[in-house]
Amino acid sequence: MKQTPNYIEKKDDVLWLTEDERENLKISYRIKEIVASESSPFQHVMILDSYDFGRMLVLDGVVQTTSIDGFIYNEMITHVPLHFHPNPKRVLIIGGGDCGAAREVTKYKNVEQIDMVELDELVVKFCKEHLQEVSGNLSDPRVRFIYNDGVAFVKDIENHYDVIIVDSSDPIGPAKQLFELDFYRNIHRALKEDGIMVCQSQSPIFHFDVLQQSYKHISDLFPLTKLYTAVVPTYPGGMWTFTMGSKVYEKPVEHAFQQDTKYFNKNILDACFQLPQFLIQKLQA
Amino acid sequence: MKQTPNYIEKKDDVLWLTEDERENLKISYRIKEIVASESSPFQHVMILDSYDFGRMLVLDGVVQTTSIDGFIYNEMITHVPLHFHPNPKRVLIIGGGDCGAAREVTKYKNVEQIDMVELDELVVKFCKEHLQEVSGNLSDPRVRFIYNDGVAFVKDIENHYDVIIVDSSDPIGPAKQLFELDFYRNIHRALKEDGIMVCQSQSPIFHFDVLQQSYKHISDLFPLTKLYTAVVPTYPGGMWTFTMGSKVYEKPVEHAFQQDTKYFNKNILDACFQLPQFLIQKLQA
Repeated sequence: MKQTPNYIEKKDDVLWLTEDERENLKISYRIKEIVASESSPFQHVMILDSYDFGRMLVLDGVVQTTSIDGFIYNEMITHVPLHFHPNPKRVLIIGGGDCGAAREVTKYKNVEQIDMVELDELVVKFCKEHLQEVSGNLSDPRVRFIYNDGVAFVKDIENHYDVIIVDSSDPIGPAKQLFELDFYRNIHRALKEDGIMVCQSQSPIFHFDVLQQSYKHISDLFPLTKLYTAVVPTYPGGMWTFTMGSKVYEKPVEHAFQQDTKYFNKNILDACFQLPQFLIQKLQA
Repeated sequence: MKQTPNYIEKKDDVLWLTEDERENLKISYRIKEIVASESSPFQHVMILDSYDFGRMLVLDGVVQTTSIDGFIYNEMITHVPLHFHPNPKRVLIIGGGDCGAAREVTKYKNVEQIDMVELDELVVKFCKEHLQEVSGNLSDPRVRFIYNDGVAFVKDIENHYDVIIVDSSDPIGPAKQLFELDFYRNIHRALKEDGIMVCQSQSPIFHFDVLQQSYKHISDLFPLTKLYTAVVPTYPGGMWTFTMGSKVYEKPVEHAFQQDTKYFNKNILDACFQLPQFLIQKLQA
């Protein structure tokens, strides 16, 4: 078990995490402390305490979410699709090991069942213990943790969920299948007749090919496909996209949920669908 | 004259620019070529060709704008205030040495005069020659280049401009005064009775103190103050704010300008004013 991987360096007694996710761009975060560090069967998992972003979940050297901005991504991947469904009872989250998405879904009193299918139990354990700004004190009895491969899990399900949230990491390694047509087809079948799905679809500037592929697959399967954006400061490029597929519902509805969000609100729910001109043109091309 | 400052490093025959604007975060860009590099009386000015962001304007080692995303900032700092004015004739740009803001203003046929007051002539020269994706082929006869201190320039002007755009760099060094009350007071006086001003007001996550100060100063002087956001991928945090002060006009109007924008459009003009919940709460606090 490598406790200090090579992306952690000590210079002049100061710890740095250097992310080199992209070949031509390196981001280095100054670290106060390595809070937890362990290899799972799938990846190396760390919780680091950084100066500028607070605590961070780092998988194989890549920052996944942080105390300072995790709420933006987690609120936007959940409250937007949930507001398009008038009465969501059963919600499935695929991935989402930081527990932040599940935590947001628990704010809806009428939701009865929240299934979270995460491959890596260590991620959940570390985030529950050491990243509570993101995971919260997640002890809601409606949440069922299923440590399994999301792709295999949805294959056997039919007509069951109202909303499915695909909260994946980047389309490399284990998460690659979560961006393929077969997977979306199984998601479609696992949804009820009026179900809604959403996935994160990467940066429109740096990974337009991924976004385009997700958008095309979802459009092929669902009568209504909608793209929306949010700013995620710790992801390269800042602007992030989400793609939603809906079988029936076209418009957001009111939900009487606890208004304790930090990014999402009613106006953001409309504004997030207003796309920059270059993105409209690229999608139409 | 230092041709290769210490923020440019060669490792294994590869050039890197390392920005260490913030003490606890370093961003390194892989560089293809140093296109131009020279010290002006004010700062060290470089145009670098990078792998991921194309050509970049770098002042004292800090990336100011790039070929890949310069349009977002420049469109948002110009088209939003210009759309609130029904008939802008005289526009003043303070700063904006990359010429991108002036270029956007030239798209309005009814604008008669565009004064651009930039301290550093070398920035304008380099951007015109080597950063044409941002500066464009800026040869419009309505643009007057004034190489002077913006703070001194506006002191002597009264009731003259319809729109004033403060396109400053960060509030350190020469740009510090561009965030102070005295300067905004002079801007207010330099505007006509129905004039509008806008300034970039930094990241709401990392520089909320700067934003709060600008917002307060502008609210003290103008009956209408409006904050809006845009995503600027190369600025830390991604989300960037702009603060607008208007003497009379409250709502956007239609403008028959050439629709060759890449970020801005009618829907973005509404959406950009919809603020995330944490920002609404912080501003009210």
